[in-house]
Amino acid sequence: MNVPALACVLMVISTVRAFQYAELARYIDSHQEEYVEALRDWVAIESDSSNVFRRPDLHRMMDVAAQKLRLMGGTVELVDIGEQELPNGQKLALPKVVTALFGSDPSKHTVCIYGHVDVQPAKLEDGWATEPYNLTDVNGNLYGRGASDNKAPVLAWIHAVGAYQALSLELPVNVKFVIEGMEETGSNGLDAMIVAQRDTFFSDVDYIIISDCGWLSRRPALTYGTRGNCYFFAEVEGPKQDLHSGVYGGTVIEPMTDLVGILDTLISPSGTILIPGIREAVAPLSDEEWRMYQDIQFDLDHYKTKIGVSELMYTNKVDLLAHMWRYPTVTIHGIEGAFSDPGTKTVIPAKVTAKFSIRQVPDMDPATVKKQVTDYLHSVFAKRKSPNKLKVTMVIGAKPWLADTQHPLYEAGKAAVKRVFDMDADLIREGGTIPIARTFQDVTGKSIIMMPIGGFDDGLHSQNEKMSRSNIFLNFMELF
Amino acid sequence: MNVPALACVLMVISTVRAFQYAELARYIDSHQEEYVEALRDWVAIESDSSNVFRRPDLHRMMDVAAQKLRLMGGTVELVDIGEQELPNGQKLALPKVVTALFGSDPSKHTVCIYGHVDVQPAKLEDGWATEPYNLTDVNGNLYGRGASDNKAPVLAWIHAVGAYQALSLELPVNVKFVIEGMEETGSNGLDAMIVAQRDTFFSDVDYIIISDCGWLSRRPALTYGTRGNCYFFAEVEGPKQDLHSGVYGGTVIEPMTDLVGILDTLISPSGTILIPGIREAVAPLSDEEWRMYQDIQFDLDHYKTKIGVSELMYTNKVDLLAHMWRYPTVTIHGIEGAFSDPGTKTVIPAKVTAKFSIRQVPDMDPATVKKQVTDYLHSVFAKRKSPNKLKVTMVIGAKPWLADTQHPLYEAGKAAVKRVFDMDADLIREGGTIPIARTFQDVTGKSIIMMPIGGFDDGLHSQNEKMSRSNIFLNFMELF
Repeated sequence: MNVPALACVLMVISTVRAFQYAELARYIDSHQEEYVEALRDWVAIESDSSNVFRRPDLHRMMDVAAQKLRLMGGTVELVDIGEQELPNGQKLALPKVVTALFGSDPSKHTVCIYGHVDVQPAKLEDGWATEPYNLTDVNGNLYGRGASDNKAPVLAWIHAVGAYQALSLELPVNVKFVIEGMEETGSNGLDAMIVAQRDTFFSDVDYIIISDCGWLSRRPALTYGTRGNCYFFAEVEGPKQDLHSGVYGGTVIEPMTDLVGILDTLISPSGTILIPGIREAVAPLSDEEWRMYQDIQFDLDHYKTKIGVSELMYTNKVDLLAHMWRYPTVTIHGIEGAFSDPGTKTVIPAKVTAKFSIRQVPDMDPATVKKQVTDYLHSVFAKRKSPNKLKVTMVIGAKPWLADTQHPLYEAGKAAVKRVFDMDADLIREGGTIPIARTFQDVTGKSIIMMPIGGFDDGLHSQNEKMSRSNIFLNFMELF
Repeated sequence: MNVPALACVLMVISTVRAFQYAELARYIDSHQEEYVEALRDWVAIESDSSNVFRRPDLHRMMDVAAQKLRLMGGTVELVDIGEQELPNGQKLALPKVVTALFGSDPSKHTVCIYGHVDVQPAKLEDGWATEPYNLTDVNGNLYGRGASDNKAPVLAWIHAVGAYQALSLELPVNVKFVIEGMEETGSNGLDAMIVAQRDTFFSDVDYIIISDCGWLSRRPALTYGTRGNCYFFAEVEGPKQDLHSGVYGGTVIEPMTDLVGILDTLISPSGTILIPGIREAVAPLSDEEWRMYQDIQFDLDHYKTKIGVSELMYTNKVDLLAHMWRYPTVTIHGIEGAFSDPGTKTVIPAKVTAKFSIRQVPDMDPATVKKQVTDYLHSVFAKRKSPNKLKVTMVIGAKPWLADTQHPLYEAGKAAVKRVFDMDADLIREGGTIPIARTFQDVTGKSIIMMPIGGFDDGLHSQNEKMSRSNIFLNFMELF
């Protein structure tokens, strides 16, 4: 049996109102190429929200998404969510948020589907086998930046609605869309927009569905928690410009040495976070959690092979899952301003900015973490007695999210998975961040379900990101 | 008075055979634009020897230099010096070395001028005010990558010969040129070429002149020593590809954390090199050296202002000059493979390569340093008990060079400076590396003089590198 994710998408709709999904799924299966072409068009737009020079592409991406929904007859708005302030103080227009509505029958439930169409950076020379912005089909795997995260899932939901329309079937629910373009950098501006439209666009929403994560194994999954993320810039500034390391080396206190020195105090080789206060804030692991983790199908050896490492940070399943989902961690992503090209350059970089992030879990609070990290790095830096200047900025502060797996929405999700796949769904958490989940829950008071469409090996944020056709399309001959 | 460096260049020749330089210098002064145009053409070629993708430009640069000398009637050869082995095992043709000869009168002395026409990397977005490969004249300063290091000085010598020819004056000496294209990455292949041609091209050479450094202040200088350079790549490799830091963070031992950890053990905040054996190899500072340094005109406050720092590593002149010229130092240049762009990316880089270098001084030996650094980093890394793989490679191993300042060649240089500038030359060392100086001395047994043409503020290897017109051309009306 293939992995009939899109059928499962339809099933979730059908759990809100009863519906036989076979006809719809068959339609989608026979219109695969239309879907793939749409995905190819979307992937071709380099909608990298982290790169300010790509902002025009990102604006265009939002327009393209809005136009697609408009042509399907949706009531579409491009909502202005204001400006973004860059670390240098400059301001930049945020990409508008697309909202759309299909159906407004007060006798029906209303589901709101959230997704994003911005992507992480990608360059061929990072080690991609194919051009990252040219969707390339290799053995049924569709390779391209954003293919899995999150363009294909957004398009899957849109095409599910399209299938109803093509077959002249009445949608069993009113369907709303909220599509944003800043998810990869912390959903800047979306919180305020949700607050502002709580009593208008969101007032009649009953359930929120998010398909912005992946399965844990080949078994279908429902996700009930995500980690948040606090993303920091630590900038050390010294000389007024880069210096020749031969001519000046030995006479100046080098910013790069300082930066490496403070980065080395964030986390121990065995994974212990060294910033005071962080570990103390984490909710203790309950016996019930321990048992749930114990029951999850997860093969450590397979995980090691998939990643290509000989050893993991923890050697048993529960510890590993817990550190993947419900404990914080520190990752140093890289350094801007230093020499990063191939070859050699004998330079003393004048201003270097480390990028690192700390994944957030209950009961951590981003505002507190910001202060903890900033105070700690400044105290460590002060001990170096360096004349250079340290500036610590938190550029993303996204909270974790956790749902009640006994809620009727999850019961519906479990039933849908059971019907389509004939097996129980894995109830999993997600180490990554979907910042807006927590906001939706806090502001609207509505229930959220996360229903992954992507595969466990899609390579989100990595080289060679892909979405498999088998994750999207249903081969009916195999299912029945 | 302007800085009549090129006249001084001619004066050195004239100290070998007596000659009045006024007529030549006047000619050069009135043909400034021809010279600037030639420099513009050379700067326009992105002959970055560290970037393998620029190798075709580098080959073209060697051809252009050879052709210029050929059109002046020189006996020119493009000497094949073989291939370079890249860290990944691939081989790449080295740029040919240009040799040229003007005059072969056995009754005359023969001087050999060495220079290089490769450059350091440069990109506009590094913070250049002008396009780095478009020579731009701003108030008499000619901005461009390679302007000072080393294209303008090489052209200065060529145009000095051209001035003799244009005025139909007989050269007082035979002039040879050796122009290479790999200086910025350690003069790969040139050592072997000098050894191979010791008894042919170099057999009749009496003196070697190098103009590949700068003055220390506004006072003219002669340079009698350079530091060498051992340049290292430390590569830490973990997962088989970059990973999403949310999805995988906490489960894998991250290469970047390991790399930062080992880099932090190279040098202390106060500048002490922590690699065992390095400091012990350094020749002690003699009383005579101390006195020489004490006599040198050098203003620490001005140096601080020029660099734009509030404090230096050492607070007195002798310590500072000693650490600039005759003590080793460690610089961390940057990290390849990590996220280095603006913005945010939530990635765990899979393979990261730090670039750092250790400046070499007497009596350090690059082969020993290679072993010291490699052993040390592996021992530090082993303590982390990481499953990741560390690979340490030394990609440049250039020896330091030291000359006898009492040699007749330096006496001639001092006399030339005295005659042109009416002041004593600063006798200085150079913290940077001119790898071939040591080889010339060892292999040919000939004496070398380093005669800087560049200004003390030329910004070698930095943003906004420049050569000032006043360093090249003589304004006669001001001189006389």
